[in-house]
Amino acid sequence: MRLKVALIQQSCSENRTETVAKTIGMIREAVSKGAKLVCLQELHTGVYFCQAEDVNRFDMAEPIPGPSTDEFGAVAKELGVVIVLSLFEKRAAGLYHNTAVVLEKDGSIAGTYRKMHIPDDPAFYEKFYFTPGDLGFKPIKTSVGNLGILVCWDQWYPEGARIMAMNGADMLIYPTAIGYNPDDEKDEQIRQRDAWIISQRAHAVANGLNVISINRVGHEPDFSGVCSGIKFWGNSFVAGPQGEFLAHASEENEEIVVCEIDLERSENVRRWWPFFRDRRIDAYGEILNRWGR
Amino acid sequence: MRLKVALIQQSCSENRTETVAKTIGMIREAVSKGAKLVCLQELHTGVYFCQAEDVNRFDMAEPIPGPSTDEFGAVAKELGVVIVLSLFEKRAAGLYHNTAVVLEKDGSIAGTYRKMHIPDDPAFYEKFYFTPGDLGFKPIKTSVGNLGILVCWDQWYPEGARIMAMNGADMLIYPTAIGYNPDDEKDEQIRQRDAWIISQRAHAVANGLNVISINRVGHEPDFSGVCSGIKFWGNSFVAGPQGEFLAHASEENEEIVVCEIDLERSENVRRWWPFFRDRRIDAYGEILNRWGR
Repeated sequence: MRLKVALIQQSCSENRTETVAKTIGMIREAVSKGAKLVCLQELHTGVYFCQAEDVNRFDMAEPIPGPSTDEFGAVAKELGVVIVLSLFEKRAAGLYHNTAVVLEKDGSIAGTYRKMHIPDDPAFYEKFYFTPGDLGFKPIKTSVGNLGILVCWDQWYPEGARIMAMNGADMLIYPTAIGYNPDDEKDEQIRQRDAWIISQRAHAVANGLNVISINRVGHEPDFSGVCSGIKFWGNSFVAGPQGEFLAHASEENEEIVVCEIDLERSENVRRWWPFFRDRRIDAYGEILNRWGR
Repeated sequence: MRLKVALIQQSCSENRTETVAKTIGMIREAVSKGAKLVCLQELHTGVYFCQAEDVNRFDMAEPIPGPSTDEFGAVAKELGVVIVLSLFEKRAAGLYHNTAVVLEKDGSIAGTYRKMHIPDDPAFYEKFYFTPGDLGFKPIKTSVGNLGILVCWDQWYPEGARIMAMNGADMLIYPTAIGYNPDDEKDEQIRQRDAWIISQRAHAVANGLNVISINRVGHEPDFSGVCSGIKFWGNSFVAGPQGEFLAHASEENEEIVVCEIDLERSENVRRWWPFFRDRRIDAYGEILNRWGR
């Protein structure tokens, strides 16, 4: 089965209405090019507010279902397309998550995934905003396949990719917001970007799956004025089940990447490279430890 | 702490004496260039005999300790260098392993690692020859650091790399014998080679460790005459803890790669990218399953 997927790589502003309108315009264009699955980047309804810790930013959160699932749900239904959203979820007063929502092509909610691994670095203060996910690594069943959604920091953890694959994901999808510290040296920036790409391509290889990674672009200032902001590095891509690039977006520009993936290829690659046959599950127990003895 | 490591990328023949003599010559040259740790490729004392299933090939196996540990142990002691061997171990009649042995600089055996994941594909009939390892993923303590030895097919499994790192490995070392099927198309060959490189660089990233991978070169015919043999693809390399190349050998030639690694860099990279801080060990239990429900 072949499937046209679209990746919406965009910049975002403090103006939610404008940002969402731009995204919906890009979704329409992607669908006009044949996309049956549209993947949006992490926290795509506005700026990456985790650059500083500010209690007022919790005003940006929303319930699920809520305004974004209504608005994008109407688009999914109108266009008959499956859409992967990434939202700032308000679950209760004082309890928030970084949550992906998959909308079915009839506009209903097919399922949600709450980001399991939460980072916390200067300019990425996510532990202040998001409680780590409590839904585990469960693919979301849709009319276009079982979607293994993982979000940003999750991409550094082979464990999440592995469990998603074992639970039947047909592909892995990583909505992301990652970028350079403009003060870092160029060499360091390149090492970081390449490490990000390599790690996700390796998840494709280890699990014999297509991997779709959608990142934001553009510079966003640090609204607290402490740091130099983040230059989001784009480079959204699709990797095939041998880790090979099927599509690769630019570093600077907003882009609609439309890419056809072949879901049968996983079947073939896993026959050639039968990694799942030989896993030493009798010897992996220590992986559940925090550290060695 | 800085450490000069050497990777011996070579071709091998059916003549063990000649092959070992060449290896020892290359070890001498590596040490003359300052190497304190010399890493040999997988099953370096002869041809890659797993291209076909032949009971007579068990004659190539040897006990540990045995002839190779004696011979290379004398070299280690003479030169004052730590050496990583990869041997066909005869443990008992009818019980054989693919075993790495680390020799201390005084010539003694610092420790062994028995290959945990055993492949079996056309031209790589290892399940016929080797019982899967039963020593787990334990780094070997030496005067130059804790060596996380993993062998060839292990390199496709993030679980092995992870557990080695958590058990205190200062670096990961992959003796390997991998190559092209000469009948495959060029595109497929490139995908395979790149997947092999990416997967190991990603282990460096995920675990914040240097990774050393040593592969064989040259074409070896299929002694059973069924297939077109294997063209071993070289490309031995050293990656730093962000996955960046520190050294990268050619695809065709025998080479002695001498590369200085900085063991303090792991400390720094793990501070910047604190992946171990955030592992969701509460949610990884399914990784011990053979497959999802």
